[in-house]
Amino acid sequence: MPRPVPVLAPVLPSTGAQTPVAADAVLLTAGFWHTRQELNTTRLLDHADSWIESMGWYDTFKAAAGLEPDRALQGKLFTDADVYKLLEAFAWEVAQRPDARREARLKELSALVAGAQDEDGYLNTFFGPQGRQSRYADLAEGHELYCAGHLFQAAVARLRAGVEDDLTRSAIAFADRICADFGSGGLTGADGHPEIEVGLMELYRATGTERYRDQARRFVEYRGHRSFDDHAIGHEYYLDDLPVREATVLRGHVVRAMYLTAGAIDLAVETGDSELLDALVAQWDNTWGRRTYLTGGMGSHHLGEAFGLDFELPPDRAYTETCGAVGAIMVAWRLLLATGESRFGDAVERLLYNMVATSPNAEGDRFFYVNPLLAREPGISVPDGVAPFRKDTLRANWFWVSCCPTNVVRLLSSLTGYLATTHDDALTLQQYFSGEVTTQLGDGRDVTVTVETDYPWDGTVTIQVLRGAGEWEIRLRIPQWAREATIEVAGATTPVEPGYASVRRPWAPGDVIRLHLPMAARLLRPDDRINATRGTVAVQRGPLVYCAESVVGAAEAVDLDRFRLDATRPPESVPATGPSDARETVLVHGELGPAEPDREWPYDDADAGADRTPDDGTPVAVQLKLVPYYSWSNRGPSTMRVWIPTADAPAPPTAD
Amino acid sequence: MPRPVPVLAPVLPSTGAQTPVAADAVLLTAGFWHTRQELNTTRLLDHADSWIESMGWYDTFKAAAGLEPDRALQGKLFTDADVYKLLEAFAWEVAQRPDARREARLKELSALVAGAQDEDGYLNTFFGPQGRQSRYADLAEGHELYCAGHLFQAAVARLRAGVEDDLTRSAIAFADRICADFGSGGLTGADGHPEIEVGLMELYRATGTERYRDQARRFVEYRGHRSFDDHAIGHEYYLDDLPVREATVLRGHVVRAMYLTAGAIDLAVETGDSELLDALVAQWDNTWGRRTYLTGGMGSHHLGEAFGLDFELPPDRAYTETCGAVGAIMVAWRLLLATGESRFGDAVERLLYNMVATSPNAEGDRFFYVNPLLAREPGISVPDGVAPFRKDTLRANWFWVSCCPTNVVRLLSSLTGYLATTHDDALTLQQYFSGEVTTQLGDGRDVTVTVETDYPWDGTVTIQVLRGAGEWEIRLRIPQWAREATIEVAGATTPVEPGYASVRRPWAPGDVIRLHLPMAARLLRPDDRINATRGTVAVQRGPLVYCAESVVGAAEAVDLDRFRLDATRPPESVPATGPSDARETVLVHGELGPAEPDREWPYDDADAGADRTPDDGTPVAVQLKLVPYYSWSNRGPSTMRVWIPTADAPAPPTAD
Repeated sequence: MPRPVPVLAPVLPSTGAQTPVAADAVLLTAGFWHTRQELNTTRLLDHADSWIESMGWYDTFKAAAGLEPDRALQGKLFTDADVYKLLEAFAWEVAQRPDARREARLKELSALVAGAQDEDGYLNTFFGPQGRQSRYADLAEGHELYCAGHLFQAAVARLRAGVEDDLTRSAIAFADRICADFGSGGLTGADGHPEIEVGLMELYRATGTERYRDQARRFVEYRGHRSFDDHAIGHEYYLDDLPVREATVLRGHVVRAMYLTAGAIDLAVETGDSELLDALVAQWDNTWGRRTYLTGGMGSHHLGEAFGLDFELPPDRAYTETCGAVGAIMVAWRLLLATGESRFGDAVERLLYNMVATSPNAEGDRFFYVNPLLAREPGISVPDGVAPFRKDTLRANWFWVSCCPTNVVRLLSSLTGYLATTHDDALTLQQYFSGEVTTQLGDGRDVTVTVETDYPWDGTVTIQVLRGAGEWEIRLRIPQWAREATIEVAGATTPVEPGYASVRRPWAPGDVIRLHLPMAARLLRPDDRINATRGTVAVQRGPLVYCAESVVGAAEAVDLDRFRLDATRPPESVPATGPSDARETVLVHGELGPAEPDREWPYDDADAGADRTPDDGTPVAVQLKLVPYYSWSNRGPSTMRVWIPTADAPAPPTAD
Repeated sequence: MPRPVPVLAPVLPSTGAQTPVAADAVLLTAGFWHTRQELNTTRLLDHADSWIESMGWYDTFKAAAGLEPDRALQGKLFTDADVYKLLEAFAWEVAQRPDARREARLKELSALVAGAQDEDGYLNTFFGPQGRQSRYADLAEGHELYCAGHLFQAAVARLRAGVEDDLTRSAIAFADRICADFGSGGLTGADGHPEIEVGLMELYRATGTERYRDQARRFVEYRGHRSFDDHAIGHEYYLDDLPVREATVLRGHVVRAMYLTAGAIDLAVETGDSELLDALVAQWDNTWGRRTYLTGGMGSHHLGEAFGLDFELPPDRAYTETCGAVGAIMVAWRLLLATGESRFGDAVERLLYNMVATSPNAEGDRFFYVNPLLAREPGISVPDGVAPFRKDTLRANWFWVSCCPTNVVRLLSSLTGYLATTHDDALTLQQYFSGEVTTQLGDGRDVTVTVETDYPWDGTVTIQVLRGAGEWEIRLRIPQWAREATIEVAGATTPVEPGYASVRRPWAPGDVIRLHLPMAARLLRPDDRINATRGTVAVQRGPLVYCAESVVGAAEAVDLDRFRLDATRPPESVPATGPSDARETVLVHGELGPAEPDREWPYDDADAGADRTPDDGTPVAVQLKLVPYYSWSNRGPSTMRVWIPTADAPAPPTAD
């Protein structure tokens, strides 16, 4: 395969139902994601850089290069990957928002990385010569090839900007080394933490070097034969319990599952393996329909950072780490490109608004790692300047294991690469934002459209054609939740169903489409099989999941344990007043009942209702103002609930 | 303090509201616990012995003694403790049920242990000379002093039988070594896993050596100052977040918390530290009232094997390892002896019938480790001969980490030491069983009573005085759940309230008391703050928690997800038919509704009820036969529910 023409896209399949519009072909000019992109550019990236520096994770490269590192505190097996993920973010960033300072820093850090590379191409700061552990000595736990995969993804970002530099040369040399070591007749094995698979596949796509694809296939196929040592949560921890092709649902470690799936999709697409692709689609569908929280978060097991069984989704024990959501976006976006089906775009939207947006605080100096849907207590605050060892804290500046922050910054730096697609003579807006898209359609036609919206606060999206004369198609994703959406073209308003709304007509510059998405807040109820959310409802407004938050010390703080929502009264959207990180709050009605009395033993005879009635007053009607889930704990430590008990929760049963 | 007279009791405080009746003063002759004691004597003990042998955990002692061990597979840091726990069980066993073969084996293994002891008294097979890790090099994780504590408990069992042997000499020499090393002016620190505290306290009680008590105090007081390295679940993992005296609830690793609390209670009792004792009582009460499952199991976090927050008790994520229950019995029994309050006897009963009894299978060759209250899937079966690395399986022959089986066997071997107490001229039956109690009351009076009952299947307990003329008191614990209990003495029947029923009269041999406990099955409802059990009820009959079990392949198997219990109809006790490991089952009424339809996304708009109604028929009235929780999975892999959704679970809310 000849070296492909560079296109600045995070995922670039050679075939599929949809072609991604490049990241630099989409410009954000205002609104929800523009704010977050700016936060990333102006704050998060430098924040990550300085934390990696102060944790000593750059110093491991100096040490591996035989230099004397500056700092005593050093990284762990996987911290090379955090460096690479930040370099990947820098690469996307400078390709779209040129910045001499950042370009210089990227060059400096790329040279640092290259300096640590062994003569023969091998590159890892914890394995190799100079007193380090032997190469490939601990594939199950060592994260060697995992780090390599992230190096390749960083290099791909550079290559897709048309740059060859220390970073891309290092990546290619290491990829060649790995192919030589693990290729036909070489070592067998795979990394306990997948990532090399997707890294090799994208490096194949960026360079045309077919042995990278073949090596990715070897790694994908190695898995699933119980070849790794046993693990406390079983072989599924490594996804080693079943071959990728035979599994029906994702399981084990969420991030590992997502990275492996992303690489396997790339492999299926590039090799035309439709059987494999079908298996991966089914795995996603079963996972999304049975193992995913309302926020799009995945993983109810803290032990092993793992998926639970089907419907094992207790809100308080949600692990749902941010990395899992970034991984799920990698997967859903690939499936969208491969199949062209809108449900994958719906998934990306849910994950962006309720998981990715939840990660950083508004000031851009703290991140969540674990994302519960029920906080009975105000949570664990982390002082400034501390990178906690535990992950289930409130937002912290950094974490001892920092995979989530670096995943968020690389996603935000490449975000515009996930918003629009083309095929034939159609442009599809997969997400809504204020900005501009300038791209070439599948038929070679150059088009430019502007998009104006206050989404997700307002449901109107105005698309204006600036360039692209003649007949072609504009398609808009109508989310599954959007019942009674309409589209307005040339004065005519048409109802549109969830899926894709298509407008094919001869366009003239200045022509406008207006999409109206229904933004009334809605009550949702959970599948009964979840059990842990029985008798509750949640609130969603547009793509945003809302939550009840009771901020410690706030005047309006209530005991959320005592609130019962009246599900017969519709929730109301209310513009936020005062300084706020959300434009719309949602008012729900209900009552504040008496607190459960404290008892010696928390389980009563069911007919002992009379003994149980507390005498501290009757329920009081109250309204509760819900805030978007992404904004929780931005006002200080708080208790929080996504799933709110309803007033028609079961009466005490009576048996005689 | 002079060396105390040996009394064969697992816990022997020098003061307190109640004095334990010795294990060999209580004889079981039939019934529920007699069956389990016999299973232990005839099967479990040998099973544990042969598994420890085959795992190579005895061989580590040979290796430490400089001998060539037989087997390649060896133990881990904590396996010395499993050897000691089995020796403790053997010691209780031979003191009550003489057996030359077992006595010889105990001597042989005691010599093996003594052979591994260093000249200066130090004893651990993973630390010390001969190429092992340096002593005390890793107190936080090394389990060195934890193992020592179990050695001391084993030695105490021998000393209380009046025996001095290799085991007791080794324990005393090691205790002296530890006191010298960690005593005033020596090393500071404590074991990450408490146990040495309770071991030293009982060794103090058994030997009168006051420095053991003083060293236990040092270890108890060392904790709580964040001196251990940080841990993924925080300092509470080691109970190092707050001094024992300042904490208000138990937290962190359940077993560590229980062992520490047991030792701290012993310390408080022996030093007259009522402030410390009050703090420990409050911690227990808050833990029992807010952090305990219906079975008495504790710990909703698999990560860190830890307590959750108050009311964080999802049934599916229950960790509730058997060791936690054994530890909770150690604590509750000590609090019962110290305070004389019946709620601690209630707790022991709940833990025995629903956690300890659940551990072994009826054949005596498999054990549970983790004990969930909801099994959506039939669980992970373990083949014969395999000791799994993971712990959340169905019952297995053995576990790679085998703390639970060895805890169960030592508890069953000493069980009769937890059943009755005395004070002044009163004998109190804390638990019900068929057998005989022969003891001396606090006033020096020798008494013998027989007890006859089919408890827990039948609620009548007949106590007959065989010996003990004159006026004295017989007290019977009336469980909190027993409403409308009566007591029948000399032809008069009197209602008795939960707590202790007392009969003081001049007794003549042959006099009889008849206690009638109400054994109707009852529906229980959970505290609303648990959330994860909202809209459900559970069934208890006497002390036994019942569960719905749907055995794979059984004719009566139903989809438990679809069953809704009609809580207006009382549950009915029904004698079990056919071969069964339970004498009474419980019939509940309800209906089997249609299955939830599978959907792309498991959260619907709340008013979308119509879309959701499946068309595969209307609900069918069914009866479900519940079995005791302890017996679940004895009939093969099954789905299982303790908390069963009720038919009056909330209707779909409607908002317009």
